[in-house]
Amino acid sequence: MTSYDSKVAKLGHIAVHTPDLDESLWFFEEVMGFKLTERVGGTAYLRGMRDWEHHTLSVTESGRTGIDHIAFRTTTPEAVGELAEQFEVNGADVRRVAAGDERGQGSAVRVERFGHEYEFYYDVEKPKAPKELRSKLRNRNYSEATANRIAPRRIDHCHVQDGVSAEHAAWLAEELGFNVNEQYRESDGELWGWWLSVTPLPHDIAIHRLPTGTDPNLHHVSYHVDSREDLWECADILAEYGMEPEAGPGKHAITRADFLYVSDPASELCIELFAGPGYLNFEPDWEPIEWHEDELGPATSHQWVGEGPDWYGVGIPYVD
Amino acid sequence: MTSYDSKVAKLGHIAVHTPDLDESLWFFEEVMGFKLTERVGGTAYLRGMRDWEHHTLSVTESGRTGIDHIAFRTTTPEAVGELAEQFEVNGADVRRVAAGDERGQGSAVRVERFGHEYEFYYDVEKPKAPKELRSKLRNRNYSEATANRIAPRRIDHCHVQDGVSAEHAAWLAEELGFNVNEQYRESDGELWGWWLSVTPLPHDIAIHRLPTGTDPNLHHVSYHVDSREDLWECADILAEYGMEPEAGPGKHAITRADFLYVSDPASELCIELFAGPGYLNFEPDWEPIEWHEDELGPATSHQWVGEGPDWYGVGIPYVD
Amino acid sequence: MTSYDSKVAKLGHIAVHTPDLDESLWFFEEVMGFKLTERVGGTAYLRGMRDWEHHTLSVTESGRTGIDHIAFRTTTPEAVGELAEQFEVNGADVRRVAAGDERGQGSAVRVERFGHEYEFYYDVEKPKAPKELRSKLRNRNYSEATANRIAPRRIDHCHVQDGVSAEHAAWLAEELGFNVNEQYRESDGELWGWWLSVTPLPHDIAIHRLPTGTDPNLHHVSYHVDSREDLWECADILAEYGMEPEAGPGKHAITRADFLYVSDPASELCIELFAGPGYLNFEPDWEPIEWHEDELGPATSHQWVGEGPDWYGVGIPYVD
Amino acid sequence: MTSYDSKVAKLGHIAVHTPDLDESLWFFEEVMGFKLTERVGGTAYLRGMRDWEHHTLSVTESGRTGIDHIAFRTTTPEAVGELAEQFEVNGADVRRVAAGDERGQGSAVRVERFGHEYEFYYDVEKPKAPKELRSKLRNRNYSEATANRIAPRRIDHCHVQDGVSAEHAAWLAEELGFNVNEQYRESDGELWGWWLSVTPLPHDIAIHRLPTGTDPNLHHVSYHVDSREDLWECADILAEYGMEPEAGPGKHAITRADFLYVSDPASELCIELFAGPGYLNFEPDWEPIEWHEDELGPATSHQWVGEGPDWYGVGIPYVD
Repeated sequence: MTSYDSKVAKLGHIAVHTPDLDESLWFFEEVMGFKLTERVGGTAYLRGMRDWEHHTLSVTESGRTGIDHIAFRTTTPEAVGELAEQFEVNGADVRRVAAGDERGQGSAVRVERFGHEYEFYYDVEKPKAPKELRSKLRNRNYSEATANRIAPRRIDHCHVQDGVSAEHAAWLAEELGFNVNEQYRESDGELWGWWLSVTPLPHDIAIHRLPTGTDPNLHHVSYHVDSREDLWECADILAEYGMEPEAGPGKHAITRADFLYVSDPASELCIELFAGPGYLNFEPDWEPIEWHEDELGPATSHQWVGEGPDWYGVGIPYVD
Repeated sequence: MTSYDSKVAKLGHIAVHTPDLDESLWFFEEVMGFKLTERVGGTAYLRGMRDWEHHTLSVTESGRTGIDHIAFRTTTPEAVGELAEQFEVNGADVRRVAAGDERGQGSAVRVERFGHEYEFYYDVEKPKAPKELRSKLRNRNYSEATANRIAPRRIDHCHVQDGVSAEHAAWLAEELGFNVNEQYRESDGELWGWWLSVTPLPHDIAIHRLPTGTDPNLHHVSYHVDSREDLWECADILAEYGMEPEAGPGKHAITRADFLYVSDPASELCIELFAGPGYLNFEPDWEPIEWHEDELGPATSHQWVGEGPDWYGVGIPYVD
Repeated sequence: MTSYDSKVAKLGHIAVHTPDLDESLWFFEEVMGFKLTERVGGTAYLRGMRDWEHHTLSVTESGRTGIDHIAFRTTTPEAVGELAEQFEVNGADVRRVAAGDERGQGSAVRVERFGHEYEFYYDVEKPKAPKELRSKLRNRNYSEATANRIAPRRIDHCHVQDGVSAEHAAWLAEELGFNVNEQYRESDGELWGWWLSVTPLPHDIAIHRLPTGTDPNLHHVSYHVDSREDLWECADILAEYGMEPEAGPGKHAITRADFLYVSDPASELCIELFAGPGYLNFEPDWEPIEWHEDELGPATSHQWVGEGPDWYGVGIPYVD
Repeated sequence: MTSYDSKVAKLGHIAVHTPDLDESLWFFEEVMGFKLTERVGGTAYLRGMRDWEHHTLSVTESGRTGIDHIAFRTTTPEAVGELAEQFEVNGADVRRVAAGDERGQGSAVRVERFGHEYEFYYDVEKPKAPKELRSKLRNRNYSEATANRIAPRRIDHCHVQDGVSAEHAAWLAEELGFNVNEQYRESDGELWGWWLSVTPLPHDIAIHRLPTGTDPNLHHVSYHVDSREDLWECADILAEYGMEPEAGPGKHAITRADFLYVSDPASELCIELFAGPGYLNFEPDWEPIEWHEDELGPATSHQWVGEGPDWYGVGIPYVD
């Protein structure tokens, strides 16, 4: 199966929990410049300045930190049911999510695979920005005239970790049609990381290996910004709030992502701002690029400045 | 038909003619920083610094200026023959191109539609950069250590014009599965421009309407560069050669492309350097964005600084 | 006399008039991101986000458009009186401005030379940004956390025009110690432009020649922004307000300024946003760089995209 | 004494030693893009792409690593002798350097103060770039058409360390007229760093305190580049050579410098690439900005990502 046959169109959204929604919203809206579509009950529905869908990040107050689910949008309305059937045929337990259970979203299905909670949906509202914030430019949603100087533009990818990564990556490739664009092999001979996509992005999802038996977690969700300048604006503005980046600015060798990481102090959700072009993969015959831990120096095998496998072990767990 | 069902994976290359190949190569290699894969007979095969295929631009010395063909790569090897059959069923005249007729390329088919010569191929060589120019980074081909400061990175899109644009755009959408991402309606009520893609790029091909009966032409081929800084480097370097941009730097309202245009003085081929993020369209339910000539001011309906429909009439004609 | 002996430290501020102060403030504060220090009577005192002085631009409602005066700050408190004496010795008419006549400013002197109204002052308040807008960084005044995405940073230079430019430039050099960094000679053999400074900036003031007998005017005042990205943000945001740049983005050959021009719709004051490094002149033996109209092509003699001498004729007149 | 009265115009050059001049030249010319004015005997005279003087960095092969001297250019030819006389009156030992002893330089004087070897000169050649490398733009020296993608533009400042910093800084301020723009106080109540300048740059020289009795050293010399993009190009290109930055990219809170540090593997000389605007200080009444180690968090007291006082202890020692 290839990405051309995949029923998955794109990464849709991430749903996380927080012990303090007001503080999380202070971080996401005021500090970072996310846009709030609506806040209903204990959940805030957020999106980047140029995201079209109702939300690409939902944050629910629940007394704890955690990841609830990761949602992919399908290529057609029918694909939602087709995927559900396929999962069931393969023995997985599928749950239906009624239309409206998540604000702005039609009926969806969820399946737990390798400890991760995946959701698949097609129908979703695409509300226009409120009139006073709306762009006059027809191919933008929110005006950038009064935007925060950080202002994530659109969701890019997510990054998860677990103790069954090889099987997990194989499932994404074989059952869902993701391409493995890049992979990283440690000096013990085992693969440690996979960067997979159904779109031309260098990755829609990355998986890192944790020791066998470790609970799965979400390392970060990434949002795209226009330029490296935006990464510097972000670090500058964090300093005004007495905060610091988790890592960066720097560039990953793998995916060529220019990055800055910063965490919501309430939910501990780590956000990667991804700037610059990275690369786009339009090749139908792409072979996975493999990096080896001990073959290349640190400049190329990991990234310029930053962290190796150790940094990645930590993440927020599933709320279950 | 949608882009998910399309047999076309991407824009592959453009083949043009020049009255003076040495002068064209001076422009493309020395001034602009294109990479020469090989020069065989009267043809030079060029690519951007991060293009993987054997060539994304071929330039043939033939005593005249002109466009020879526009080539799309298919999603599978079989799709080449399937498309040929489909074109023939629909009454078009299909010609086979033997493997090797174009250096680095397997067997392909060509069809003339609406005055444009389209080629479809799958098999193509992806030669590594010569060892002394090769990147140590596995997801790059050429090292950028000694690269020219302009150095186009990868082919992005092409832009053609003809007197039968509405039919032409409909054919691309219906028979090949391109999405119409944006379109422009003039005050006479007629559509004047279509921006279409099979990838998430804002356009793989754009079409502008010329008066009925006008011969079709190629307005420009576009290459992506990393940042707006590169557009400024380019204009600066052109000044060192006593040359000027055709237009720009500026930003198009449609596609949100940050641009600079410059022409090869020998072949008159116009190159658009496209920087910045533009936008990527991952939405399966995207509705064409329509711009109206007389509804919005010049700031939004055309572009910041630059040219309206008049500028676009000119282009290089097909060679035969 | 050289800039090392000059009694002038820097360009201080520009005072202009407007027929509609509310509309001017809408433009300067809301659209552009200037900071309002205070509004007293019919005058608003504005500054860039990183200007330290009380104001670098004052705008007075007076029923008309015009320039009131151009102010330079002296190197010492005593220099104000020394300059006044020197001007009087040389036959000029000097007027005293009492402390507080301009808000935030101590006693100053004014002299009219070549039709331009120049002010010299030393004492000036440097009010800290209001607490809720103040930067936590000790070498910044306003926090950039909530700043507008254009947000001029600091005053850079002004640009005036008159019919006695050669004498005017000579006076600035000989009596005030400005260096002529660059000059431009037209094909008639006459100098048309002078770029002069007492600081290492490529110019603190530029003068363009108008036909003999023409009234002097102010072409623009320039503010510095951090990067070319900011020029693009500016043009983008102007589009949201239905406005367009006057010119640019582009780069001047002379001074190497990356620029975008935009005018206040009420006062017609033209603002040049100047990004990028330009150049700094630290050389004590700098010889004026001379450009010739007919020696070099347009790419180098004027600028990439933009305007020659014609564009510069227009400006706002002195209010008298 | 203020910078307006200073006899020092600017930082001129740094002279260092290397155990392997060929390797140092590989690094400075090939990797980094410095321009070689000439190589005479065992010394290479280098400059940035936009430096006007004969050299801003000289590298001499001498079997060891070290700093030879730091040179400042005076405001007038006479100032060289006047400074010599002043130093002698104050009891220092002054040595004359004959014209031509350093290539391209007229007669100069040297004085050792606080363990540092300072040189003062005025006469210096400003050779044009070789014709084939010369810019057509009259306010540039070397063309950037074929320049390396890193290519430092001009010398910016130097950074030294010693055990008598407070006295050293006071001498620069009182005897030479440097302004203290910023200073840093550690939690022990002692000042640890001084950033001083005679120009509007945030610093022409910085001094860090080492434990009393420690030998003085040079931490780094800094060159300016145009933009943050250049910092990324640099880190990217270093990766191609299997090298890594010493630190960065990041931004210093003090001076607001966007930085990347990289060392010559042969001489161990550390180069700071300084991008972006930092700030320019045109204020005649500037009061030193004081930062306190324990008052502010790491984001603001040191810098985004990087190193505190420990990192700065190391440097290259004086050669004799």
